[in-house]
Amino acid sequence: MSCRVLVLNGPNLNLLGTRETDVYGTATLDSILGDVRAMAAEHGVDVYDIQSNSEGELIDALQEARTRADGVIFNPGAYTHYSIALRDAIASISVPVVETHLSNVHSREEFRHTSVVSAVCLGVVAGFGADSYLVAFEALRRHLSHQASPTARTD
Amino acid sequence: MSCRVLVLNGPNLNLLGTRETDVYGTATLDSILGDVRAMAAEHGVDVYDIQSNSEGELIDALQEARTRADGVIFNPGAYTHYSIALRDAIASISVPVVETHLSNVHSREEFRHTSVVSAVCLGVVAGFGADSYLVAFEALRRHLSHQASPTARTD
Amino acid sequence: MSCRVLVLNGPNLNLLGTRETDVYGTATLDSILGDVRAMAAEHGVDVYDIQSNSEGELIDALQEARTRADGVIFNPGAYTHYSIALRDAIASISVPVVETHLSNVHSREEFRHTSVVSAVCLGVVAGFGADSYLVAFEALRRHLSHQASPTARTD
Amino acid sequence: MSCRVLVLNGPNLNLLGTRETDVYGTATLDSILGDVRAMAAEHGVDVYDIQSNSEGELIDALQEARTRADGVIFNPGAYTHYSIALRDAIASISVPVVETHLSNVHSREEFRHTSVVSAVCLGVVAGFGADSYLVAFEALRRHLSHQASPTARTD
Amino acid sequence: MSCRVLVLNGPNLNLLGTRETDVYGTATLDSILGDVRAMAAEHGVDVYDIQSNSEGELIDALQEARTRADGVIFNPGAYTHYSIALRDAIASISVPVVETHLSNVHSREEFRHTSVVSAVCLGVVAGFGADSYLVAFEALRRHLSHQASPTARTD
Amino acid sequence: MSCRVLVLNGPNLNLLGTRETDVYGTATLDSILGDVRAMAAEHGVDVYDIQSNSEGELIDALQEARTRADGVIFNPGAYTHYSIALRDAIASISVPVVETHLSNVHSREEFRHTSVVSAVCLGVVAGFGADSYLVAFEALRRHLSHQASPTARTD
Amino acid sequence: MSCRVLVLNGPNLNLLGTRETDVYGTATLDSILGDVRAMAAEHGVDVYDIQSNSEGELIDALQEARTRADGVIFNPGAYTHYSIALRDAIASISVPVVETHLSNVHSREEFRHTSVVSAVCLGVVAGFGADSYLVAFEALRRHLSHQASPTARTD
Amino acid sequence: MSCRVLVLNGPNLNLLGTRETDVYGTATLDSILGDVRAMAAEHGVDVYDIQSNSEGELIDALQEARTRADGVIFNPGAYTHYSIALRDAIASISVPVVETHLSNVHSREEFRHTSVVSAVCLGVVAGFGADSYLVAFEALRRHLSHQASPTARTD
Amino acid sequence: MSCRVLVLNGPNLNLLGTRETDVYGTATLDSILGDVRAMAAEHGVDVYDIQSNSEGELIDALQEARTRADGVIFNPGAYTHYSIALRDAIASISVPVVETHLSNVHSREEFRHTSVVSAVCLGVVAGFGADSYLVAFEALRRHLSHQASPTARTD
Amino acid sequence: MSCRVLVLNGPNLNLLGTRETDVYGTATLDSILGDVRAMAAEHGVDVYDIQSNSEGELIDALQEARTRADGVIFNPGAYTHYSIALRDAIASISVPVVETHLSNVHSREEFRHTSVVSAVCLGVVAGFGADSYLVAFEALRRHLSHQASPTARTD
Amino acid sequence: MSCRVLVLNGPNLNLLGTRETDVYGTATLDSILGDVRAMAAEHGVDVYDIQSNSEGELIDALQEARTRADGVIFNPGAYTHYSIALRDAIASISVPVVETHLSNVHSREEFRHTSVVSAVCLGVVAGFGADSYLVAFEALRRHLSHQASPTARTD
Amino acid sequence: MSCRVLVLNGPNLNLLGTRETDVYGTATLDSILGDVRAMAAEHGVDVYDIQSNSEGELIDALQEARTRADGVIFNPGAYTHYSIALRDAIASISVPVVETHLSNVHSREEFRHTSVVSAVCLGVVAGFGADSYLVAFEALRRHLSHQASPTARTD
Repeated sequence: MSCRVLVLNGPNLNLLGTRETDVYGTATLDSILGDVRAMAAEHGVDVYDIQSNSEGELIDALQEARTRADGVIFNPGAYTHYSIALRDAIASISVPVVETHLSNVHSREEFRHTSVVSAVCLGVVAGFGADSYLVAFEALRRHLSHQASPTARTD
Repeated sequence: MSCRVLVLNGPNLNLLGTRETDVYGTATLDSILGDVRAMAAEHGVDVYDIQSNSEGELIDALQEARTRADGVIFNPGAYTHYSIALRDAIASISVPVVETHLSNVHSREEFRHTSVVSAVCLGVVAGFGADSYLVAFEALRRHLSHQASPTARTD
Repeated sequence: MSCRVLVLNGPNLNLLGTRETDVYGTATLDSILGDVRAMAAEHGVDVYDIQSNSEGELIDALQEARTRADGVIFNPGAYTHYSIALRDAIASISVPVVETHLSNVHSREEFRHTSVVSAVCLGVVAGFGADSYLVAFEALRRHLSHQASPTARTD
Repeated sequence: MSCRVLVLNGPNLNLLGTRETDVYGTATLDSILGDVRAMAAEHGVDVYDIQSNSEGELIDALQEARTRADGVIFNPGAYTHYSIALRDAIASISVPVVETHLSNVHSREEFRHTSVVSAVCLGVVAGFGADSYLVAFEALRRHLSHQASPTARTD
Repeated sequence: MSCRVLVLNGPNLNLLGTRETDVYGTATLDSILGDVRAMAAEHGVDVYDIQSNSEGELIDALQEARTRADGVIFNPGAYTHYSIALRDAIASISVPVVETHLSNVHSREEFRHTSVVSAVCLGVVAGFGADSYLVAFEALRRHLSHQASPTARTD
Repeated sequence: MSCRVLVLNGPNLNLLGTRETDVYGTATLDSILGDVRAMAAEHGVDVYDIQSNSEGELIDALQEARTRADGVIFNPGAYTHYSIALRDAIASISVPVVETHLSNVHSREEFRHTSVVSAVCLGVVAGFGADSYLVAFEALRRHLSHQASPTARTD
Repeated sequence: MSCRVLVLNGPNLNLLGTRETDVYGTATLDSILGDVRAMAAEHGVDVYDIQSNSEGELIDALQEARTRADGVIFNPGAYTHYSIALRDAIASISVPVVETHLSNVHSREEFRHTSVVSAVCLGVVAGFGADSYLVAFEALRRHLSHQASPTARTD
Repeated sequence: MSCRVLVLNGPNLNLLGTRETDVYGTATLDSILGDVRAMAAEHGVDVYDIQSNSEGELIDALQEARTRADGVIFNPGAYTHYSIALRDAIASISVPVVETHLSNVHSREEFRHTSVVSAVCLGVVAGFGADSYLVAFEALRRHLSHQASPTARTD
Repeated sequence: MSCRVLVLNGPNLNLLGTRETDVYGTATLDSILGDVRAMAAEHGVDVYDIQSNSEGELIDALQEARTRADGVIFNPGAYTHYSIALRDAIASISVPVVETHLSNVHSREEFRHTSVVSAVCLGVVAGFGADSYLVAFEALRRHLSHQASPTARTD
Repeated sequence: MSCRVLVLNGPNLNLLGTRETDVYGTATLDSILGDVRAMAAEHGVDVYDIQSNSEGELIDALQEARTRADGVIFNPGAYTHYSIALRDAIASISVPVVETHLSNVHSREEFRHTSVVSAVCLGVVAGFGADSYLVAFEALRRHLSHQASPTARTD
Repeated sequence: MSCRVLVLNGPNLNLLGTRETDVYGTATLDSILGDVRAMAAEHGVDVYDIQSNSEGELIDALQEARTRADGVIFNPGAYTHYSIALRDAIASISVPVVETHLSNVHSREEFRHTSVVSAVCLGVVAGFGADSYLVAFEALRRHLSHQASPTARTD
Repeated sequence: MSCRVLVLNGPNLNLLGTRETDVYGTATLDSILGDVRAMAAEHGVDVYDIQSNSEGELIDALQEARTRADGVIFNPGAYTHYSIALRDAIASISVPVVETHLSNVHSREEFRHTSVVSAVCLGVVAGFGADSYLVAFEALRRHLSHQASPTARTD
């Protein structure tokens, strides 16, 4: 299968491995992305990644993914809980999006139990630490392999 | 009447004509803006437009409109439902703002029935697809023409 | 474009310009209709109007509009808040109906915030005083001009 | 049995067969009435019908039925949900009235679950599409045949 | 005193004397109106009356009373309990309106205890059967005689 | 018609014309009673009046009215809101009682909206100031004149 | 046993046998009192009775009973439901008081379910029609016979 | 200071000194009034008193006090808790009223904690047994002496 | 009568006459105490006073009053609303305490309507401004004079 | 074990044995402290005690206990229910504190069921009358004996 | 600027630096006050300080500050949450008070989120440990320097 | 001390001095920043500032501050009330952040009483107008000076 996947990370995830390591673990975003890339390479899948703290730039990236990616692994960070604009962005593209979280958001503070984006994602993978990204990749890869003809990509 | 109007568009509206065309129609934002510009030209009104997926850039544009525009046609997209910062921005400028929506928000999901910005806008035009913009322009143009001396503009 | 539009006005709107002028303005219904007719003439659109205090006659007018009009500008007045029969009438005809209000109903008494007809209308124009009708006409005219073959009319 | 029955239809029912056919079926009011008339003829019952969108005219028809009919099959349409005036009209005549609906109103929108007229009707037949009228006729015919001396009629 | 009074009757009141005579008495509307006219004649007051089962026609009559009558005796019947349109009509005319009921509404069903029109009427007379009209006339006549210059009438 | 009417006034009404004249007007109870007597004399009706601040004396007066009066005009004052004993007294006599109020109680304090006596009265006259008594008299006089044989009176 | 009992009757009970006979029966207060007296004579008990519509006079009678009676049979009528003053009067005398009602007040209107005097009475007898008084006498007689030395009486 | 004071006592207070002496003390009302009179005489103040078990007579006394007294010491007894008529009477006279209680009502039953008259009284004195009256007199006397010109009295 | 009275004042009352004079009047605590002392001297009563902002010192003063005073006039200020310790102190001494307030607390802020000390005081005097202290003294003096043998005092 | 214990008593406990003996018993605080001292002597424990009515002084004593005592037996009296300041004082010292009450506070008035200090105490002993202090001592002694090295004391 | 500032500290703050140092830091109150004094000296401001565990002594200090200080830095400690007496004291003086806390109360226990004094203070400084005092001094100094004529001080 | 501080301002704060000057004062953001810079210069502290209407840019600025600043003075404007992403950004950096508000938010609209960022800030300074920034600087400067080795900065 030859395709391309976007790993999209929301606010503050660029600080992974440096902050609240008891919650998020010590892996940096770079090492996680390295692992995803290695796993993807085994399956002939190309990976590119974007991290932004800006709700607007994340929307930009999702929009761009329409023509640049076959699927998205998306960790929306804190925007998960209130960004209807991100929800709309996901809903407006045909590329499948897998919502991904390092921690089990349901076992944390009450205000982290609500996700306004889950409803328009393909599925959710949460709670496995750095592994969440690898598992999400696996989930996305399998989904894509089931599709007879992957979403047309223009580049 | 010689004046200038800002057409301001919120998140995901750049995808107009390509997404959920059953809801939003097939017109692209560019074609809509072209139509507004053409209509405006007939009335000697200058139009400039800004689209951003970023809440902050939309606030920037509203603030800048204080000195650059005589009125604003604003489609806040999903921010309609939760951006108190946009509400504050509209409330803090004296330029009249017409809230505009492509779809009839009252016939969609429950959570799209609430607007945190309506109360500080001049009026509302909703449900006419791409035409909502032209209609909103008409409403704004008429409002401005009733004013003896248009809002002072510095450029 | 050769078509015909019904401007339909509900209860007590025949008193416009004579009652509660601080809320509704001093324009009479006749002057407003004159303005709509003038604007319509410029576009080769025929306008006829009906004002009735009767719920049934308003339904009759909406039904008759199926074959007599290509679109309706409708200000339901107090019936806005409780006439399910008017709602059904709008829903049962294919002619587009634009709900129109002189005042910004969201900034008035609580019991005027509920509309039982909005959900089945094409769109809403509210808050521009007498201009609301002209703006609503513009919205309707444009909507109609987009339709390849206007709704068949029998007269 | 020689008697006369009024089939009374409320707002928007004149559009049957032309609107929302998924809900109401494709039979027109005329074809339904034809079927009722045919069935009635077999039993020597005379049928006349009135349809009106006006609450007032429906009240007129019910009042007139006092001297013109032995029974009424009445589909009050949307007035079912709020017209206490129709309720009073039914209550004020001695002619038995059978409330009739094409659809099962209880399986539709919440606001269609309330009937202010049922309490003063002889009975209710709802949910059988066009057949509702035939069933209602059967119900009414049986009721009338049980009465030793039918309600005196003046014409 | 030379003036004119409208006696306005709502739905089903034309059946007075023929229905639920235990509640409403045996006097017909005609006989009641005859009595009011006779009493009025003694005071040099002109009386005209309108009965309608239609909410809209009742609004028409109230509006027309602005220029045709100095006062109104109004029995809104069942509309008493839900017609915001009638309330708006009463509120929008300067002619004094006396709410009148044949029966004591407070000793009947719960849903007849609410009046949406009382708050905008001059006063209330209820419970005296046919006499309620004569008594309401007396109340209105006295009110008008206290006014230095009666409401201007155009005919 | 030769009959007798009791005008019964409850607590603090003897102070009429001297307290809270903005609410109750400047007419004293004596002047009101004088007007009622004059009007009654014209109809050959005898009037006697009782004012008491005592609940028990008001009950006595109502009971005595069974044999001494043909009807009662009763303004229960503050007792209107809590005297079940007065309610029972009214309910236990066959003499018709007209509840009368100077002001429109529905437009005053919330706790004055409840009447425990209305349900057992013949009718209500409210809102016409001092005229309320005259109007109530008219209502009562007419009611009595309709009765073939007036309630037996022992004196 | 030589003693004296007061039968005390509250508001409107003097009308017994003449009002609402479906609720209270056809026995007059006099016939009931005659029956009580006859039964009392058999036991050598002297009976005297007082009826008053006045809360104050009933308090007077209870107070006087301190020195004039050995027990009281008391039907407080409507005062049962709100007279704390009667409660205090009963509480302030040492003479035993039996609360008595003809009807079963708990099976009547909601507002008749509350008694503010029961708590300070010796006991309650209710629901046996005229027999309630005889049963109450029996209850009181037995209570008094249990007392070694009856309450001292001064006359 | 030459003025006159009414000492007004409500229901059951005539039994003072004979009932519930643990709560109210052993002083009789007569001895209390004698003490008040003696104290008043020292200040050249005339005292008259009224005791009644009747709500109405208490209202009478309050009304009469308008022209007969310069101030009132009022112990409403049990009426404290429910007599809106007494409240209205106090509110309708300009004579200052001092609410007075023998016992500390706050340390008794819950239902004695509510006063419907306190809000319209000058002040409250409670809990000093018979002395409450003397203390209330002292409070009233001082209040009156502060007034430049005492309330006009007509006798 | 030879006895001693403590006038005890709670927090912020030392500022009397200097703060919120519209609520508390312009009399200083010193002038009030001077008046109390003068009045007491006339009765041969010794007065000492303590003002403290400290809850503990107020409790100390109340306890010390057991042996040093025959009675207490106590204005607990803001502690009235929450000091259970002061309540317990009052409850634990046999010296009578008169709760005193300058203003009518029932006509002020809601949170000042609750007193946790009233229930354990001898009585309450409130609403007479600076006179409240003199009146409270009078109440206390009289209470003490009734006691055969005053509470033993050790000094 | 050689150590020192503070027995700390809050407001009004100095009155033990003299007040409300039905609740608190007849033992004086001195006799209780004597018993505690005797029991402590048997275990070679030194006891000192402080009683204060002042919240502040109790805080002072708790603070001083840091260096002067190995444990505290504390009866906070009424402060138990609202003194967060005492709670903070207990929390801020490392010396173990045993909350002690003579009565079972949970079986008394509702407002005595809440303790704001329990959460920061070692444990609670309540309801054994004077024995509560001995039991608390026993509990504290055992706790201290379990500690390998008692809290360092500086004097 | 020559003025004087009171630094007022509530309960348990004398233990600063010795208790819960993880929450409050290791600085003692003395060292903090020394720092404030040094800073104040640089601005020619005189500082005096009071610490007390007693609510009453804190009120004393606030009252004294009326004439002795131009401003107050106040850390009410635990009293922040329930002392209405302290609130009244702050409200009754015209000297500006800056509420100050060492810790960030919003990140601690729920019951520490409520302040009954904030509403009557000039502003709040919280969360900077010992520096909160210096910062509060800076805020107060600046506030005072903006005032043309500082609050009059009598010493 | 050689260090650098970021003054970070959220949405609409660039309009300071031009909008709602009654609430926010007339100082512009530039003049406030000038004052902060001048004060900082005195302490050898470098100040840089960022104002952004964008939530993402504010997060960027907070993250960048990790290596570029030793502390942050942050006025989040309207984002205070809903930006969980800003809260997470503050929580994820070790640089101390001082939440700053010009006005006393506790005395404004209810929806401005909630802060989602306070709990993760070092402290709060609010209510001193433009001085709030200077005071916040002072708080931050002092906090930084206490740290042995300031947060490593990369530029």
